[in-house]
Amino acid sequence: MGFFSKDIKTLDDLFVHTLRDIYYAEKQIEEALPKMIEKATAPELKAGFQMHLEQTRGQIERIEQVFEMHGVEAKEVNCPAIDGILEEADEVSGEVEDKQVLDAALIASAQAVEHYEMTRYGTLVAWAKQLGRSDCASVLAQNLQEEEDTDRKLTEMAESKVNLQAAE
Amino acid sequence: MGFFSKDIKTLDDLFVHTLRDIYYAEKQIEEALPKMIEKATAPELKAGFQMHLEQTRGQIERIEQVFEMHGVEAKEVNCPAIDGILEEADEVSGEVEDKQVLDAALIASAQAVEHYEMTRYGTLVAWAKQLGRSDCASVLAQNLQEEEDTDRKLTEMAESKVNLQAAE
Repeated sequence: MGFFSKDIKTLDDLFVHTLRDIYYAEKQIEEALPKMIEKATAPELKAGFQMHLEQTRGQIERIEQVFEMHGVEAKEVNCPAIDGILEEADEVSGEVEDKQVLDAALIASAQAVEHYEMTRYGTLVAWAKQLGRSDCASVLAQNLQEEEDTDRKLTEMAESKVNLQAAE
Repeated sequence: MGFFSKDIKTLDDLFVHTLRDIYYAEKQIEEALPKMIEKATAPELKAGFQMHLEQTRGQIERIEQVFEMHGVEAKEVNCPAIDGILEEADEVSGEVEDKQVLDAALIASAQAVEHYEMTRYGTLVAWAKQLGRSDCASVLAQNLQEEEDTDRKLTEMAESKVNLQAAE
């Protein structure tokens, strides 16, 4: 998509553009997660990130499936939003000295990532339905559900253990 | 906070850092909203953004109140996440030709902003409680509630009208 041309003319174009945005985002997340696994200290947090890495790979496959169902090329577009969210995650974690406090920071960063994904999948599901593509909507809704579940698990982990240890 | 020093040593430091991050973010949102009001076509979307601009100013005041309650200086730290989210909003809206499709894109961008704020306030509320600052938590929870309400209203506006018109 060019910066000086107006390439998005229809809701369908906007849907495809946003699908390419989240495709790029998921691939960046796939790259970022191994670093987060390495930085995490609490074993359940490490395991949670590991599980989310597997999940992310499945989500990328589902997006590829939607590209195919919709008859468009599976390609990525730049997504400054996820770049910024991941840059911030990296910056903050680099400033934390204590391992327990770092776990709390990592959870907060992961939840910022989850929330970005939740909002994009929520939008994509609504647009797919509007475009009469309930088949694409139901595949994307599976990714949305997984992100919501992951976010909830991170909240539980933070409130039941990680924040307590970070405050000690 | 320096890039090469580890300035965050406690959960309290992390809380203050994140409060300064969302303080910066809210000020950037306050700057971005007038441009979104200008670009919006549907009168209820323009009105919704206008209302959110007033709300954002109130939220900034609440954050300043929390800085004071917690006895720390009200200052901003860079927040690459919100910079990226707003940059993406600007990029996408610049690529949309049709006014009705642009409204759908503006709602999606605004919801990405809301989700970032929701995750940060959610985290800040949990950390404030953990730090024994339920007074700060309850002020921050008001901002969280407003963001959740705004996000829900945007979904309703998209699904009841804006997406339908964008698909015509």
